[in-house]
Amino acid sequence: MTKTLVCLAAAGLAAASFSAQAQFAKPEDAVKYRQSAFALMGAHMTRINNQLKSGNPDMAAIQSSAALVETLSRLPFEAFVPGSDMVANTKAKPEIWKDTARVKELSDKMVAEVAKLNATARGGDAKAIQAQVGAVGQSCKACHDDYRAK
Amino acid sequence: MTKTLVCLAAAGLAAASFSAQAQFAKPEDAVKYRQSAFALMGAHMTRINNQLKSGNPDMAAIQSSAALVETLSRLPFEAFVPGSDMVANTKAKPEIWKDTARVKELSDKMVAEVAKLNATARGGDAKAIQAQVGAVGQSCKACHDDYRAK
Repeated sequence: MTKTLVCLAAAGLAAASFSAQAQFAKPEDAVKYRQSAFALMGAHMTRINNQLKSGNPDMAAIQSSAALVETLSRLPFEAFVPGSDMVANTKAKPEIWKDTARVKELSDKMVAEVAKLNATARGGDAKAIQAQVGAVGQSCKACHDDYRAK
Repeated sequence: MTKTLVCLAAAGLAAASFSAQAQFAKPEDAVKYRQSAFALMGAHMTRINNQLKSGNPDMAAIQSSAALVETLSRLPFEAFVPGSDMVANTKAKPEIWKDTARVKELSDKMVAEVAKLNATARGGDAKAIQAQVGAVGQSCKACHDDYRAK
């Protein structure tokens, strides 16, 4: 029973990774894709932070950035395709491909925190938004600490 | 009168470019931002094309990509900040900063064609989507021909 479940899980992972790989013609394309999503997410998290620090935050700008970050947060995970740790300009550590389940969990956590940020931003309470920005930052850091080269 | 209008227009452009510049700490950040948006847009246009060519297109995948491309299409224009043609890895030609009005028009045209693609994708007619993918491609090419270095 346990063995069957493990096999099914492995087959599921293999199918998922095959489908993800099919989206990218070369490992370099996958690296560029995930780096692009992370770069835009970072830029818009910085914009949200700058608004919060400004003393007179533009809520419409914060909400627009938060919505965009939520959309983008779902993109990078599938772009960690096998073999794309061998590309020159990636900081992704090879451990990512050993710890797939944990990395997926960390990615899901980040996606959930970002979704919460988007909901909080729509509420318009700067203090609550600031607190949730902190939670998002922690969810990024949790993965970077173990899986991104310094 | 004409002079006043020209001055007002110049002041407007200056204000717009100041606000855009304020979003980026360095010209390199603006380059990375617009390249990231274009990279993701390109990746998802390729996915749409691959689905259409597959003979059995996954409409949900096409619709999800088209919605994402529409969201992303609004990002790059503001990242063509003055001075960001001097960065080593940009293909943006200096003419962009002389022909601001025409570049804005080409960008607006691209955004409009992508919005039409998103609407067409929701309709689910593969032939209509294919035709609109062509229109989007033309709107990209119109700008690349004159303003992107080969």
